[in-house]
Amino acid sequence: MLAARYVGARTITVEELEPAEPRAWEVQVAVAYVGICGTDLHVFHGDMDGRVDKPATIGHEMSGTIAALGAGVEGWSVGDAVTVMPLAWDGTCPACRAGNEHICQNLDFIGIDSPGALQEYWNVPASALVRLPAALPLRDAALVEPVAVAVHDVRRSGLAAGDKAVVIGAGPIGVLIALVAASSGAEVVIAEIDPTRRAAAQEMGLTTLDPSTADQVAWVERWTDGAGADVVFEVSGSAAAVLGATSLAKVRGTLVVVAIHSQPRPVDLHRVFWRELRLLGARVYQRQDFERAVELVAEGAVPAEKIVTGVVPLGEVASAFGVLEAGQAMKLLVEVSAS
Amino acid sequence: MLAARYVGARTITVEELEPAEPRAWEVQVAVAYVGICGTDLHVFHGDMDGRVDKPATIGHEMSGTIAALGAGVEGWSVGDAVTVMPLAWDGTCPACRAGNEHICQNLDFIGIDSPGALQEYWNVPASALVRLPAALPLRDAALVEPVAVAVHDVRRSGLAAGDKAVVIGAGPIGVLIALVAASSGAEVVIAEIDPTRRAAAQEMGLTTLDPSTADQVAWVERWTDGAGADVVFEVSGSAAAVLGATSLAKVRGTLVVVAIHSQPRPVDLHRVFWRELRLLGARVYQRQDFERAVELVAEGAVPAEKIVTGVVPLGEVASAFGVLEAGQAMKLLVEVSAS
Repeated sequence: MLAARYVGARTITVEELEPAEPRAWEVQVAVAYVGICGTDLHVFHGDMDGRVDKPATIGHEMSGTIAALGAGVEGWSVGDAVTVMPLAWDGTCPACRAGNEHICQNLDFIGIDSPGALQEYWNVPASALVRLPAALPLRDAALVEPVAVAVHDVRRSGLAAGDKAVVIGAGPIGVLIALVAASSGAEVVIAEIDPTRRAAAQEMGLTTLDPSTADQVAWVERWTDGAGADVVFEVSGSAAAVLGATSLAKVRGTLVVVAIHSQPRPVDLHRVFWRELRLLGARVYQRQDFERAVELVAEGAVPAEKIVTGVVPLGEVASAFGVLEAGQAMKLLVEVSAS
Repeated sequence: MLAARYVGARTITVEELEPAEPRAWEVQVAVAYVGICGTDLHVFHGDMDGRVDKPATIGHEMSGTIAALGAGVEGWSVGDAVTVMPLAWDGTCPACRAGNEHICQNLDFIGIDSPGALQEYWNVPASALVRLPAALPLRDAALVEPVAVAVHDVRRSGLAAGDKAVVIGAGPIGVLIALVAASSGAEVVIAEIDPTRRAAAQEMGLTTLDPSTADQVAWVERWTDGAGADVVFEVSGSAAAVLGATSLAKVRGTLVVVAIHSQPRPVDLHRVFWRELRLLGARVYQRQDFERAVELVAEGAVPAEKIVTGVVPLGEVASAFGVLEAGQAMKLLVEVSAS
């Protein structure tokens, strides 16, 4: 089989490898499509060399069908369409014991900490499988994982129908959060300085705001009759956005920290205190988020045809990273299956 | 009557003034004791000259008895022992309409934005009165307001019996939060770099930690069997404390921002994201917090005799500010009544 291998900064090769048999409690998935996400790009840049074991097959946004069952696996059949919730927890750490397995203190994120989906046959724990409706195109289903991130972020925020939300940053996760929030009955505006990303968001029916030209605090005040937004999602990763975000939220409003900030960021704690704001970290997803994400993609609440801006064959995976780096794509998929 | 008047930075005079009659819906309170808090100290320093109308009678931690009733006031009698919840809201702003009157967007904090308790007779809206048990010494009752702050902070944190909490900063509010948390069945450690404040906290039966010599992250890890604290209260106002606080909280733990940070502070948002932490701003109190605070002071859960480190007569109020500035006192009261 063919498998992509990250071998060092900016170098991904595609090699012929022997597929392994699934072990007990595992299934072998014939991978169909794999999306490339920001974290994969970080790996590609060499920023995560301390975490990945080289050569590393990465990839965790995927769809496929079951090719073989390991011993002891029940409830699944060869040919079933699946995606994978790429988390394996130890079940014994304090976080797991408290019911927060998804952010286990020793979490194995499959596709980063252990081998991922950029290979024709991928063995995963059967417990990580999520069933896909047979009618859902596998190409669209590769979006389920990032949609599950968005579902988790929106669910964690407590956003309710009729609420007003600001999403800062119109990259793939920002757009998906905006779409999920809108699908739950909230009114949403997405703030983005990049005109191409703004145009892409508008294409999906989202209201946008350019914080480099508009006074976003005044805009939100007007929009909310002086109250401020119920929820603000910080998805940009920008220090300036963090500093400004607290001024957009209503009294007792919520700011969800979705982006990865590799350095401490100045936060207006006086505003947090004054308005009794709530800042929430939100990371990955829980099974219910994945299942809801499958529904949203299947229902078309997430317009897969607009989000996926390109599909490349596995042999050209390295070029896909180059295109993403240049900011020329919303979401690129790698078509892994030979079919 | 005598009244203290803040006339400009570092200057408070005591003058003979004519007491005003209470207007409709007001009561006139014969003030017994007034505590001086950190905000009063800020006013004294001239830092809040943009907010206070000079000359200003400040003071909002108090106890007294009703001296006269304005027209329309029902349910109260002359002689009733009272304290005052010093908040007046407009009732019409978005925060009020959402039930958050205590942090009304146009809040009048009585004693800062309008005249306060450092005068022999003080007129306040009857709606701000909180009844005191007749058996509670008025000297102790002057602590109800800061205890209500602590009750609010602890209630907002969601701290439960059996939880473990870290309080950063052993000033008056930090100590009160620790005592209130302990009284609700939590285990508490208070982190404080100042040896005098640590000794005072220990005197009240609190476990202390010196973050300048102990590795507080390792200490909390050991204390919590590797989980981290359920709740961390940031009461120090220090930038270093904020930066370190996120490392003390468990997965899905809570960090309450109690201190006033006049500048944006670097916050480890990666940790907030990674552990799905919750940062909560907490400010002032609601009526239920005041009523609970009365109970806690009356029950002796708050050792008033250890918290109050001095009582000065109204004529010497200026000297009390000097003592507090020098960090030589936990809580000073001003005895206002001539009796």
